[in-house]
This record gives sequence, structure tokens and C-alpha cells, in this order.
Amino acid sequence: MANIITMGEIMCRLSPPGATRLVQATAFNIVYGGGEANVAVSLAGFGHDVHFVTKLPNNELGDAALASLKANNVQTNAVARGGSRLGLYFLETGFGIRPSKVIYDRAGSAMAEATDPDFDFDAIFANANWFHWTGITPALSPQAAQLTKKALIAAKKHQVTVSVDLNYRKKLWSPKQAQAVMTDLMQYVDVMIGNEEDAQLSLGLTLRKTNVTSGELIKEDYLEMFRSLSSQYGFQLIATTLRESYSASKNGWQALLFDGERLYESKRYLIEPILDRVGGGDAFSAGLIHGLLTRDKEQALEFAVAASALKHTIYGDFNLVTENEVDTLVTGDLSGRIQR
Amino acid sequence: MANIITMGEIMCRLSPPGATRLVQATAFNIVYGGGEANVAVSLAGFGHDVHFVTKLPNNELGDAALASLKANNVQTNAVARGGSRLGLYFLETGFGIRPSKVIYDRAGSAMAEATDPDFDFDAIFANANWFHWTGITPALSPQAAQLTKKALIAAKKHQVTVSVDLNYRKKLWSPKQAQAVMTDLMQYVDVMIGNEEDAQLSLGLTLRKTNVTSGELIKEDYLEMFRSLSSQYGFQLIATTLRESYSASKNGWQALLFDGERLYESKRYLIEPILDRVGGGDAFSAGLIHGLLTRDKEQALEFAVAASALKHTIYGDFNLVTENEVDTLVTGDLSGRIQR
Amino acid sequence: MANIITMGEIMCRLSPPGATRLVQATAFNIVYGGGEANVAVSLAGFGHDVHFVTKLPNNELGDAALASLKANNVQTNAVARGGSRLGLYFLETGFGIRPSKVIYDRAGSAMAEATDPDFDFDAIFANANWFHWTGITPALSPQAAQLTKKALIAAKKHQVTVSVDLNYRKKLWSPKQAQAVMTDLMQYVDVMIGNEEDAQLSLGLTLRKTNVTSGELIKEDYLEMFRSLSSQYGFQLIATTLRESYSASKNGWQALLFDGERLYESKRYLIEPILDRVGGGDAFSAGLIHGLLTRDKEQALEFAVAASALKHTIYGDFNLVTENEVDTLVTGDLSGRIQR
Amino acid sequence: MANIITMGEIMCRLSPPGATRLVQATAFNIVYGGGEANVAVSLAGFGHDVHFVTKLPNNELGDAALASLKANNVQTNAVARGGSRLGLYFLETGFGIRPSKVIYDRAGSAMAEATDPDFDFDAIFANANWFHWTGITPALSPQAAQLTKKALIAAKKHQVTVSVDLNYRKKLWSPKQAQAVMTDLMQYVDVMIGNEEDAQLSLGLTLRKTNVTSGELIKEDYLEMFRSLSSQYGFQLIATTLRESYSASKNGWQALLFDGERLYESKRYLIEPILDRVGGGDAFSAGLIHGLLTRDKEQALEFAVAASALKHTIYGDFNLVTENEVDTLVTGDLSGRIQR
Amino acid sequence: MANIITMGEIMCRLSPPGATRLVQATAFNIVYGGGEANVAVSLAGFGHDVHFVTKLPNNELGDAALASLKANNVQTNAVARGGSRLGLYFLETGFGIRPSKVIYDRAGSAMAEATDPDFDFDAIFANANWFHWTGITPALSPQAAQLTKKALIAAKKHQVTVSVDLNYRKKLWSPKQAQAVMTDLMQYVDVMIGNEEDAQLSLGLTLRKTNVTSGELIKEDYLEMFRSLSSQYGFQLIATTLRESYSASKNGWQALLFDGERLYESKRYLIEPILDRVGGGDAFSAGLIHGLLTRDKEQALEFAVAASALKHTIYGDFNLVTENEVDTLVTGDLSGRIQR
Amino acid sequence: MANIITMGEIMCRLSPPGATRLVQATAFNIVYGGGEANVAVSLAGFGHDVHFVTKLPNNELGDAALASLKANNVQTNAVARGGSRLGLYFLETGFGIRPSKVIYDRAGSAMAEATDPDFDFDAIFANANWFHWTGITPALSPQAAQLTKKALIAAKKHQVTVSVDLNYRKKLWSPKQAQAVMTDLMQYVDVMIGNEEDAQLSLGLTLRKTNVTSGELIKEDYLEMFRSLSSQYGFQLIATTLRESYSASKNGWQALLFDGERLYESKRYLIEPILDRVGGGDAFSAGLIHGLLTRDKEQALEFAVAASALKHTIYGDFNLVTENEVDTLVTGDLSGRIQR
Repeated sequence: MANIITMGEIMCRLSPPGATRLVQATAFNIVYGGGEANVAVSLAGFGHDVHFVTKLPNNELGDAALASLKANNVQTNAVARGGSRLGLYFLETGFGIRPSKVIYDRAGSAMAEATDPDFDFDAIFANANWFHWTGITPALSPQAAQLTKKALIAAKKHQVTVSVDLNYRKKLWSPKQAQAVMTDLMQYVDVMIGNEEDAQLSLGLTLRKTNVTSGELIKEDYLEMFRSLSSQYGFQLIATTLRESYSASKNGWQALLFDGERLYESKRYLIEPILDRVGGGDAFSAGLIHGLLTRDKEQALEFAVAASALKHTIYGDFNLVTENEVDTLVTGDLSGRIQR
Repeated sequence: MANIITMGEIMCRLSPPGATRLVQATAFNIVYGGGEANVAVSLAGFGHDVHFVTKLPNNELGDAALASLKANNVQTNAVARGGSRLGLYFLETGFGIRPSKVIYDRAGSAMAEATDPDFDFDAIFANANWFHWTGITPALSPQAAQLTKKALIAAKKHQVTVSVDLNYRKKLWSPKQAQAVMTDLMQYVDVMIGNEEDAQLSLGLTLRKTNVTSGELIKEDYLEMFRSLSSQYGFQLIATTLRESYSASKNGWQALLFDGERLYESKRYLIEPILDRVGGGDAFSAGLIHGLLTRDKEQALEFAVAASALKHTIYGDFNLVTENEVDTLVTGDLSGRIQR
Repeated sequence: MANIITMGEIMCRLSPPGATRLVQATAFNIVYGGGEANVAVSLAGFGHDVHFVTKLPNNELGDAALASLKANNVQTNAVARGGSRLGLYFLETGFGIRPSKVIYDRAGSAMAEATDPDFDFDAIFANANWFHWTGITPALSPQAAQLTKKALIAAKKHQVTVSVDLNYRKKLWSPKQAQAVMTDLMQYVDVMIGNEEDAQLSLGLTLRKTNVTSGELIKEDYLEMFRSLSSQYGFQLIATTLRESYSASKNGWQALLFDGERLYESKRYLIEPILDRVGGGDAFSAGLIHGLLTRDKEQALEFAVAASALKHTIYGDFNLVTENEVDTLVTGDLSGRIQR
Repeated sequence: MANIITMGEIMCRLSPPGATRLVQATAFNIVYGGGEANVAVSLAGFGHDVHFVTKLPNNELGDAALASLKANNVQTNAVARGGSRLGLYFLETGFGIRPSKVIYDRAGSAMAEATDPDFDFDAIFANANWFHWTGITPALSPQAAQLTKKALIAAKKHQVTVSVDLNYRKKLWSPKQAQAVMTDLMQYVDVMIGNEEDAQLSLGLTLRKTNVTSGELIKEDYLEMFRSLSSQYGFQLIATTLRESYSASKNGWQALLFDGERLYESKRYLIEPILDRVGGGDAFSAGLIHGLLTRDKEQALEFAVAASALKHTIYGDFNLVTENEVDTLVTGDLSGRIQR
Repeated sequence: MANIITMGEIMCRLSPPGATRLVQATAFNIVYGGGEANVAVSLAGFGHDVHFVTKLPNNELGDAALASLKANNVQTNAVARGGSRLGLYFLETGFGIRPSKVIYDRAGSAMAEATDPDFDFDAIFANANWFHWTGITPALSPQAAQLTKKALIAAKKHQVTVSVDLNYRKKLWSPKQAQAVMTDLMQYVDVMIGNEEDAQLSLGLTLRKTNVTSGELIKEDYLEMFRSLSSQYGFQLIATTLRESYSASKNGWQALLFDGERLYESKRYLIEPILDRVGGGDAFSAGLIHGLLTRDKEQALEFAVAASALKHTIYGDFNLVTENEVDTLVTGDLSGRIQR
Repeated sequence: MANIITMGEIMCRLSPPGATRLVQATAFNIVYGGGEANVAVSLAGFGHDVHFVTKLPNNELGDAALASLKANNVQTNAVARGGSRLGLYFLETGFGIRPSKVIYDRAGSAMAEATDPDFDFDAIFANANWFHWTGITPALSPQAAQLTKKALIAAKKHQVTVSVDLNYRKKLWSPKQAQAVMTDLMQYVDVMIGNEEDAQLSLGLTLRKTNVTSGELIKEDYLEMFRSLSSQYGFQLIATTLRESYSASKNGWQALLFDGERLYESKRYLIEPILDRVGGGDAFSAGLIHGLLTRDKEQALEFAVAASALKHTIYGDFNLVTENEVDTLVTGDLSGRIQR
């Protein structure tokens, strides 16, 4: 199993119980999550030795976030403590024709204000095989962007494979700000994950004709985009998920992987009903990393898309599935028969 | 924004948590609701100055019902206090092929026993633009029927536009009793809302051939019914929703509006899954009133049907949506993508 | 109404709230259930005088299991008390493409260790009309298998009609063990219920070609299997349900009944969404027994399949429906309209 | 063990979770209870064959009330079905210096409107040893008062011992109404239970000087009252509890029993904290009946007061304790050490 | 009834259910509260026309905070909308020897960043009789301190009586910062509320010898402090509560009022158990204001201390009690007997 | 900080919510706990490097137990996986005069059936400073007793300090069985913890006159017992807690420590109310170990008794407190004032 590093912010997510709305809430269910933490938990669940790099406030909320990582088998030696607050987000889970809503309350979080001395990147990457990050981390703050770059330089110094999920977040930065940072950071990336919208907003690249909203997929256009990205940034692999959003409770789900030569196209899942789609992309990233570390590319892609399809039926940000459960789905058993 | 009056009974609704049955209940979730209160809350949410006319008992249950109105921006100056009890209803929410069940426990409620001196209708309608009532209010008791007539006379005296939702309830009165009261009250109505079944049971009118249960819609037959009602009662507008009930979790939903000349037919929504369909008709009434007050008839109808489609995904009787959320659905985005 | 006996183990079922996973649980919702207890509750709900034969530990958990039977109108005079523990099972309810999971924790239960002196079978069957058991009871332990045989002998001595649901459970015994016991016990059976998989594993018989997993039904093959079973064991009636498992939330559901001559094929239900499919087969058995006691064979089968389809929308192991509710579904109303 | 009959109304009790107030409630926990039902459940728990006589509406709420009796071992053959509604009461449980509050919503209940043909009193009392009723039953309505008298006549015809708990309820009738009915019914009573306030309001008798509110007990005055009641009505036994209400969470608790000659005075319990004092008096009545049926008078009184002290630590109206648990407390172990 | 203004921040309070710790939480119960909002709700509950001045973010969390005010009868016309976030605080409620803990997460809240143009103080105070504020409001931020001064100047311009609760919060500012602001603002104050610790930290004044922690009260020392404050700032009235903290579940509670001449000393309450002591001081302020507006000083103080004693038994920040409930306690009934 | 090993069984504890009884439960709250695991969690919380030695079944329940350890900072490298089931126990938490009840369901657990090859004791104790075990572990089964001895031998081989909590459990073995095993194992023990009852039942030694139930403490008698044990087994230190059980909600709590010469007597705490006393003894053991590792004997004892007093206010088996919180209590602040 590999030694894997992910770095980013883990937040407390607060959501009204059941399918009620935020304004109806008299209580919030809480879980912890965030793009890179979600990937860490998935990979730890698949058996890897995973370390998460973040900074958490020195109070009970920070303790609880830390405990959620430990309980899910993530190593936390590289977690710094301090700063003023834990990032929060409020999630109103959509239902059928009513979409989900997110209110971020993460400004000024410990990780957004973390600085270089909080982490010893040389030690962190000394024995690492893989480093995964997402576009959310540099978007947190200018110092977080600098921190990301330092981590990438250290990772490359230690010959660590680097993957990124572009994950553009319009509430954190503008396309202009994003592109200024992200286009520079792509030089350190081996495996790039991102859909057409992310690529456009984070890297300034446009997929010619595909209509993402309607779910129509024009694979040829994607192939062209991948070739263009590949030649511009030298990525070894590019992957994307293709979500067809019929409603908050029903999605089509498929993925593509490009290795510079061949375009792999996964099986398509119709996911209905959906319990919790937050973290679906992160489950894909984790599935892809695990797949690439243990199988051939075609199998890796199928593992990734099955893992992330399953995520839509798991409550919370974390994809609490085993490799065996994912493989059962890959093999084609969607029957949902009781195991007894 | 308009000054709108609605009058009726608000009840405490008690329902077993989740999708459990009444006999399984060890607790009841409670919300407050009732046809005219639901319309009031919707219209207040769309920004109107809405006053609800009712009578509530002078105890903590009456206080809680009142608080639910205030919290949802409804004005409660015209709420009388006194009487012996708050009306209740027990709701077992259906699930798939299992239908919902309602047990009414509203006999002898404060509003059913309210009388003329409880309300100063002249003051209530002095600055009003619109008065909405439903066939439930006069069905509560003979004195409630008299009260309704007095309110209507006062409304007309002050040149207030009057809308009604026929809303026949077989557990409150017989068709014969209903028709004796309702056919008389129609003289005060400008905008009539009611489906074929309501029209038949409340007004004695039959739609020729449509099979409501199966969801087959024969618009020509509806047109004929509308023309007949129009000529008989002089309504300016007639509207109806067309529900196709496939199961408790899946409905087709569409609406018609007739202005004496043209029959407007809305977009059709397939609502699946359904969270809570109680109050769907009230959400339509409120959407239609708001639409007619702010847009043209075609847009008004589309707003009304979208608002009421959304209601099916909101827990409770009240349609807790904003104008903006309804407009997003009208514009055609059913994708349920997370807003973040 | 008939005097009906069922015998088996009732367990405490522990399941995480909502659709969360076992590893996420901070609480377990509990209900009581087990194949034969479920049948007893259904039949008591349909108005029969039903006695359940089991043994429960002499502690509060045994008391609670007993109370759940009494609350559901099952007679408990024949329940022995004593033994070391109550059987438990942990259920993680599936959701969409994620299947349900069961962890049994029933070894050493009071019923598994019950012995002859615990029950007075002559008294139990003295006034009985019908005895229902399932393949789970003899699978509990060797002494439970002996007990089952003694009960069957007593039942036959008192001219009681005997039905069995084969219900093979691979976590309780091997096909070899099952066949050694079950083929012997078939001599006492009048009405046999079991699908192709059960027949194969419990009785060693194979249905020629049908692919159960994919839901393709080859009725001719079933007919051949029924004829073979009929001639081998002399069953008066053979029935089976035909489940098409599309996902944990969507199943096709139909049933067959063979009376030695004619093969009755029920209406097919598409059950979506599913709330709780545990006990679906037991609801079918109970529906069939009630149907055979009160109607003709064709109607009995339709009643059975409708009752069990409804079960999928009821939380818990018990099928808490009335005869009237089942008949409404049989008549064809799937509309889910609110009864008010 | 004895065959015991109790008769009265069982209600659904709705209370906000924890120690929240009625106006804060978004859910109500529900249990079922009522004076005579509570006594029935206690006595069934002590092993008697107990029948409860009431009338319940023919809906799911009536079913649930019935199930709560069955689950607690009460025989329900004599329960009539029909009428318009189930009686309800809303309970806000007090906390420390904040007192409990009850809102009754029981007018027009099935039992309040029950009439003679609903019950076959000859059959009911044919094998009975004891009949217990309370002053609440005749207070429900004039016809309920008549029904109570008919039951008492039948009981006496069958030589059944009769006990009453005066239980004056000021929200159901005035002292004048109460005395008109109750003084007449006392002729059938063998064992009378009631405190000074009850005796004054229900029977018009005053205890000379005792200050009940402050908890000061003047036993001599009680003795005088008992002697007076004894000579006037010929009771064999008179008993009363003596509650010292320091706060909603802290009470002193003691009882007296008078047999015409000797005044027995029980041990005094300081109950702190109190979980749920509703049904404390009923637990005393049941304890006393059980005690008188199985022990000498002194032990009977100690059993009764210990049983009712324990009730204050049990959630709900029903005193869910075993004879063994009560005896442990009688023996003097208040240590609360874990039994493991 | 009076027209009363209060100004400050209302926060969402998140607390683990029951008596669990923050690190154990899988959900947070939420209520809304804050010193000045709590006073507003109390006074509205006593029947006054109360307006709360604050700024809330333009999202669902702001909507929910606003709804909590409206539901509790507070006028919200003067609430500005906008800014970046709603202030939050996490509360771990203490239990016995374990103290409560608060984590503030209110930096950068809408109210902390509110500025002059958000409010029209002339309009706000035009018809007002009373203005209440606390030392928390100017502590929020420098601009909040300026805002407070502007409000005070406007209040005085309109001859409004001004009361303050010093309420020193060490997590918001240092004693030095507090004194720089507060000593200046005291010139506008008529009624000053604050204990010895507040007076020391906010105003730099020390009570000679009293040992607050141990609950020993040296009233002579308090009298001296009051005289000193009175002569320095010209307060008409000075009041303080005297809390004896035996544990998180048991407090002594008493209060003093000084009118420049006489020192009034209230009854002392022993509050045990305590449900929720947050907002106890605010309940005192509101009780005192209501008392001073409707009774003589002695009665006002008794009303205030009883109201705040009751608050300790009410869940949440708001003191949801009626004038009648407080008066019952003042009259001396602590018996906690059920009202039925 | 020290490297500490504890060994034993961790169970899933199931308890009805709030203060309800087992027979009332419709759900069980779950936590994980067990004597030695509780000690491990406490010590990890105080900052030590703690390893727990146990065996857990290879299913989701085993995973969840493991996650609870990790989340609380316990190292789990030495946890074996396999075996048939996770030990369970059902806890009905007492309330006031109603005692707590425990139903064990732990027979046949993975740890009870664990054997030598499951653990590499040489590796486990290689770097250890301290080994803590309790009398529960050898009581689980004969092989568990052998395992305990092997662990003790290995510990001694590596010069590890050994502490034991006698913790006699009458549901696991008889005094005779216990003494046969325990008197032998005492040779490896340095620090012995146990009260008079434990010493009598586990070691056959009697404290002359002390009446434990009544809470009367005769320290001289304890001193004599300690001297006798000391001379017999050569313990370096002997400690005991002295619980005075007034009710399930109120206990006195104190402790003694004997070092062969001096008897240290701690401060006495009156703990009222009690939230959860399970694990109170384990909290003492952990506090004592931590105290002995970091302070002098007198301070160690005070730390231990304060830590365990606090435990009574923490929900669950684990004592989730920090060293700082314990020290605050040691210093004498019982005031329960809010930290804000």
C-alpha cells in the first residue's frame, strides 16, 4: 500500500435533519469534511497509509474534526494546531426538483490563515508516494496559495506523484484570481482531474461545444480539450466525471480518462435515489488514485466511477465504503439484495 | 406589494416521524397549517402584506399556532383569541404504493365556533386588495358558513378582489350541504380555483368525461366545464390543477387557467420523489394570486404551477420558498445542482 | 376466523437511523421480528386468532419482544421463558445501488436452545386450524430441528393444515445440512412456499434455466419445478414470489401459485421507492394463508402479493396493514391520494 | 392472583421532549394513560388478571391506545370501539421551581360519550374479585356518571370488592356537581383513597387544620377525617398519600391507611430528582390493591407507597415496575448501585 | 404598555443534545439568542411593544434569526440586512460539578461590522420610552462602540430612559479597552445593572471585600460600591444579581436594588436543578424594566429576581414565561404541583 | 509521557435514551466501553502513548469499536481481528431511587475466545512503562485467564510496572473461581486497586467491620486490610475508592491510597446530580496512573479522585476530560460558572 499525502481544509458541516430546509432547522446534524480530507478518508479506507495536512484551532471543534480523521484511519501527525476558528459550512440537502444549497462560513479559518512554519514539508513528503490536492486549497487565501506551492515544490523534490482536482469554487475566488494561481501550479501536476467547467474557470480553457447542464456528452470535444491540456501542461493523465443532473435525487454518472493516447470511457450509472452527493467528486479522485496504484487504467477508471457512484448513497462527506463493496458494484451487481 | 386577507382555520398537524405509520408512533412531529393559513404564508413569503383571520384558543397551543404565523411573516392583528380548543389533524404520510391518511380532530375548534363579534370585517378589509378563502372555512360549522358570507359581503363592499379554492372535504360536510352553501357564496367570487371533483361536489357541476383517477386529461372537457361555470357564476378567472397520482411518491402536476376566452395550459412537472404533498393546492392558489398581481396570465399560471410543484419537496403545510426559487424552476432548471 | 399457530425465533433488530451505515451509528432503532413472528403478526392483523410458539429469555429484552407480539394482537400463552439470551440482528438498510447488510448475532439464543419440555404441543395444536413454519427454525440448532419435527407430528395428529416457507439462510447452515433436515420434514407439509433458490439449497432441486438475479422469469421452468416438487412431496399447493431486484430502492414483485393442475400468475407490482423490504416474504406467506382461508385461489394469490408489496413501504419486520388496505391495492388503486 | 376490573378513559398524552415548554415544541413524545388504565397496567405488571373497561374510537389512535394496554398485559375484551375521538392531554413537565402544566383536550371522547349498551357489565364482573374506579370517570359526562353507577351496581351484585380514588379534577366538574354524584356512589365503595383536598371537593368534607401546600402533616386531623368518613359511608379502609411539594423535582412522599381502628403510617420517601410524577397516585392505588390482596395491611401500605415513589422515576403514566423492584425499595435499599 | 428599544447582536447558539460534551456531538440543537435580544423577547412576552435593533446577513441563517424574534413578538422593522455572516456560539451546558463552556465564533458578524447608515436612530427612538443595551454591544468592534454611542445620543435626545447591563466579556475585549469605552457611555445611563466583577472590569471600580466565588455576600460593601457609582455617574438606579454558584446544577439567586437612598434586597431562591442558566442575567434586566414600568421598586425587584430564577428552568436563551407565571412564583408557590 | 498498555474487552453498550427503561426502548443509544478500554482512553486523553490489546470481530461492529478507540487517541496496532461476535451490554441508567441495571450479552465474544497466537506480547511490552489490567479480563473465559497470565509474565520480563483493578463481576464468575485465578496473578502486580468487596470476593480477604452499603467508612479497618494485603502480596501501592450511594443520582466519592507506610485520604466529593456513573472506577485507575507518573502520591490521589468525580458527569463509559479540567476541580472550583 502507498504512503499518500493530501492537504487542505476540513470543515464542520451543519445540515438540517432529513430533507427539511435551513429555515426550518431546530437542530443541525454535523459531520466533518472537505475535498482533500474526503480523499484522505477514502484512500485510508482502501488500506493506504494516508496523512492529512491541515491546521485546526486549539478548541473542542478542532479536536472533533481531528477525531473524525483518526476514526477513519487517517494519520494526523502533520496536523498543526492553532488559529482562530474552524471553517464551517451549512448544507441544505436538495430533494427532487429542489436543489441543494450551501452557505460557506469558512473565512478566517485556521487553515486559511496557516503559514509556512506550521508544516515541515520535507518531513511530510520524505516517504510519500503520492500527493493529492484540489483547487480549493489555494483559493482559501493568498497565504494558502503560497503554502500550496511550497508543498508542491517539496513533493516534487521527493519524486512524489502529484494529482489535482481543479474544483473551482466561485464563492472563494474569481476566474481571474483562480487562473493567476492555478496555471502556475499545473507545472507540478502529473494527474489532473477536472470537468470542462473547472478547466474553463481555473485554467481558462474552453471545451468547444458540450452542454454540461443538459447532460449531453460530446466525447470528441472532451478529447480535444484533454489533448490541448496535455500538450500545454504535460499531464500524464487527465480524468473527468460526467454528471447528468436530472434532479437532486437522480443523476447520471460516468467518467473519462485520457493517458495522452487513449480515451477510456467508463460504464454509466443511473443513480436514483441520491442520499448525499457531496463528496462525489472526491470519491472519484480517491478511487482513481487507488485504481492507478493497484490496477490497469481501464480498471482504475471503472473502480473510480463505481466508488463515486456509491458515495451518492452514503450520508456525509466521507465515502465510507470498502474496496470489496466497490468491486461488487464494478462487477455489475446493482440488485441491492440483502446480504444475509 | 398587495394587502391580502385570508380567513380560515389553522390546525396543529401531528405526524409520525419519517415514513412510519400512525400505529407505530412514539412521537409526533408537529407543524401548523390549514388551507388559508398556507396561502397566507406563501404570499407573505413572496413579499406581500398578508393578514390572516382566525380564532385561536387562549392557551399555549393557540400561542404556538400564532407564533408559526408570525415567524412566517403573516400579520396577526385580526386573530381573535378564545374558544375551547385548537383544531388538530393527524397525518400519516404515504410512501410509494401506500397512500397518505388523515384523521381530522377539529370538531369544536375555536374557529369552528367563532362568531361575528370576534372580527371587525370593516376594519379588516379597509385597506385590502385581495381576499382568499377556501371551501373548508364554511364547512367547519353553520356559524362558520355565516361568518364566511359576512366576510365576503364586507370584502365586496371594499372592492376587494375575491378568490376561492373550492377544496371539498367529505369528512366535513356532504355534497348536498356543501352545494347549499357554496353555490350562494359564488356570487362574491372573482377568481375560482377548483378541479372537476370539487366543482361537482361543491357546486353540483360535472365534467363530462375526464377520468381523474387515471390522470388522463381531457382539456376540451375542462374547457366546457369552465365555460359553464363562467356563464353561471360570472367568474373572471377559473383555474385548476391537474394531478396525476401514480403513487404517494410520484405525481404528474400541471394546471389550467381560463379567462373567459383563452385556456392557458401550463408546463407539466413530473414530481418524483415527493416529500410532502399536503398544501400543494394552497401553494398553487398563492402562486396564482402572486402571479396575477405581478405578471401576465400566462406567466402567472407558470409561476403558480412551479411554486406548487416545489411545495411537494418541502416538509410541512407551508410552502417555504422564495419568489426567486420559483422563478429558477419556471426558467427550466430542474438539475438540482448544488449552489456553492 | 381461524386458529393459527406459528413457531420460530423472534429477534431484536437493531438498525442505524435513516439511511446511515452501521459504522456511522451512534444509536440503533429497534424493532422485533423474525420470519414466523412476522407471519403471526400479519395474520393477527387480518383478524385471526394467532398463537406464536417460541422461547424468550427471562429479562427485559425478552419482555420487550413479548410486548411487541401482544401489542400486535398475537396470543403468547405458548411462549416459554428462560435460556441465556435474545437473538439479535443488525440491519443496515440499503439505499439505491447500495445493498442492505445483515449481521446476525443469534447464536445461543433462548429459542435455539429450547427443548421439548418447553412446549406442550398437544395443547398448542388442540384447537388449531393451521400451522406455519419456515426453514429458519430447524436451522437454528440441531435441537431446534428436532423440536420442529415434534411440532409437525403434533400438528398432523390434530389434522392441522401445514404451510412452510423454505427460507434458506446460508449463515445458519450449509445446503447439505439443510437438505438432510428439510427433505424429511416436507412429508408434513400441505402448502409449500419457496423460490427456485430456496428449493435448490433446501431440497436439492434445480429450476432448469431461470436466471433469478436478472429477474427474467421463465414461468414454464417454474411450472416444471412445481410439478416435480408436487410429485415428490405431495404438496397440495406450491407458491413462490418472483422478485426483480433493480436496486435496494426499486423491485419488481409478482407471485405464482400452483395447485397441482393450474399455475396462477399474479399481477406484477413495480415497488419504488422501497422503505423496508425485510419481511416481504413473510407478508406474502401470511397473505396467502389468509387468502386461502377466505377466498378462492386466484384471489388468495392476488391478496398475498398485494399484502407483501405493501410491506415494502412499512418500517420494521411486521406488515402493519389491514385487510381493507390490502384489498384497496388489489382493486388497483396505486394512486396514493390522501384519504381526507 | 386476582381478577381485577378497572373502568375509565385512556388518553393519548402529548408532551414536548426533555424539559422544553409547550410553546417550544416541534414534536410531542406520546404515551397513553389515564387514572384507571394506569392502575390496570400496574396490577397486570404485578401478575393479576386485569381487564380494562373503556370505549375507543375506531381509528389508528384507538388502535394505538389499545396496543399500549395489550403490550402491558391488560386484557381488552371489554373495550368497546366507536365514538368520535380519542381523548388527548398535553403535558408540559415541570422542572425545579417551574411547575408542570396540563391542557386537557378530552371533551367529546369516545368514553365520555359511551352508553350502557357498549358494555355487558354482568359478563364483565362475573368472575371478578376487585373493581377499581376513580372520580374522573363519572366526571367525564352525565352519561359517564350513569355508566359508573351501573358498573358499581353490577359489581356489588357479583360481590366484588370496590375501591375508588376520589381524584377530583376541577377542569371536569365543579365541587357541587362532583358532590351530587360522588356522595351517592360512595355506598358501593369498600376501599376509599383520597387526600383531604379530594375529600373536601368531592364529598364536601373538610380536614380541620392541616396545611397541605406546605407539606405539614397533622395526622391527628387526618384520623378525625377518616373516622368521620368511615362512620358516614361505612368504608372498610381509607387511605391517602401525603405529598410534600418542594418543587417539581423534589417531593416528600408518604401515606396513611385507616381500617376503622388503627391508623397505619408508612415510611416517608424524599423523592429527588423526579422524572415524571403523573400517575403517582394511580401507582399508589394499584400498590395498595396488590398489597391488600397479598399481604397484611401494614405491608400493603408500605408496598403501595414504595411502588408510587418509584413511579416518580418512570417516564410516562404507567408504573412499569415489577413486584420485586418495589420490594427491594421497601426493604430499604435506596443506594442506586448498579446491578451487574 | 411601553415602547422599548434594545440593540445588540443575536447569534445562533449551537449546543450538543442533553448533557453531552462538544467533542461527543453528532448534532447541535440550535436556538437564537444574545443579551439584548433576550431582553427584548422577555419584555415582548410581558406585553410591551419591543423593537430590536441589529443587522443580520442576507441568507437563511439571518432569516431564521429574524423569524425567532418575530415568533416571540419582537418588532423587527429596525433590523438591517447585509454583512458577511451571522454570529455563532457553541455552548456545552454544564452538569453538576462540570462547568458550562462557551466557544464564541462571532468575529466578523453582520452586527459587528454594522455602521451608522444601517439604522435611522431618530426614527427608532421617536416613540420610545425605554432603551436597553449591554456592554456586549460596544465590545463587538470599534464601529459597534461608535454605533452604541450614536444610539445613546439619539435616545437621550428623545428623552428615553436608558438602562445598561454591564455584562463584561473577557473574550471580546480587555478591561482596559472596556473601561475606555464604557466609562464614557455611562453618562447616558439612568438604570445601571452589573455585579461587582462587571463594575470592576468595565468601570474600574472594586467592591471592597466580597468573595463572589464562595457566594458570601457582604451587602454593606455592595452599598458602598453603589454609593460610589451613584455619585460618580449619577445613576438613578443600580441593581445587581447575586449568584451563588454551588455547581452547574445548583445556584443561589438573589438581587439588590439601590435608588440612591435605600438598598432593596430581594428574596433568595435556591435554584436546583438548573436546566439552562444562559440568559439568566438578561431575564433579570427584562424583569426589572417591566417591574419599574408597572410597580413600585420593591415589587419590581422581586419580579425581576423571580423572572430570572424561572429562566434557569427554561431551555434556550429566551425567558419564555408569562407575567402571570412570574407573579405566581413571587407570591411564593414553589410547590411545582401540576396545574390540571 | 509514558508508553502504557491496557488489555481487555471493549463492548458495545446499548442504552435507552434519556431516563427511560429497557422495556420502553424504541431505540438504543450506543457507545463503546469496557474497564481497560476506559482506562486507555483516559490516559490517552492525558497525553500518554497508550496501546489497547484486545480482539475484535471482523465486521462493522468491530470496525466501529476500533474507530471509537482511534478517535480517542488510543493506539490500536495490537488489536487482533477475528472471532465470532462483539460483546454487548445493555444499560438502563438509574434515576434517583431507581437503580441502574445491566444486562450483559458478552458470552462468546472475540476477546473471550482470543488465544495466545492473537498477540505478540514481547513486541507489545518492548517499549512499555506501565501495564494496567482488571479482574474482568481473566473472568471472561479460561483462555482469557491464561492470556492474562501470559501478558503479565511478558510485562514483568520487560520491567513494566503493573497495576490491577480487582473489579469483581459476579455475573462472570464465582468468588471461588475468581480467587483461584486472581490470587495467583497478584504476584505480578505493583499497584493494586480495589475496594473491600472486591478484595473479599476476588482475593478472599475481609475488611473487619466497615459497612459499605451505608457509606460509613472505617478507615482504620481499611488500613488493616491494606497492611494485610501488602504483606501477603507485596504490593507497592494499594488504592480504593469509597463510594457512598445515596441514590442513583447522588453519591459521595472519596479515595484512599496506601504506600506500605502512610495512608493518604483524599478530599470527599458530593456528586449530585450524576449523569453516568459507569466507568467511574476506571476513571480513578487512569487518574491514579497518570498522577503517579507525573506527581507525588498525595497529588496523584487527589487527581485520581477528581478525575473520577468528573466522570460521573460525562455521558458514556469514557472519561472525556482534559488534565486541565481535572486540575481545575482539584484546585477546588466546583462553582460551575460558565467559561465565556
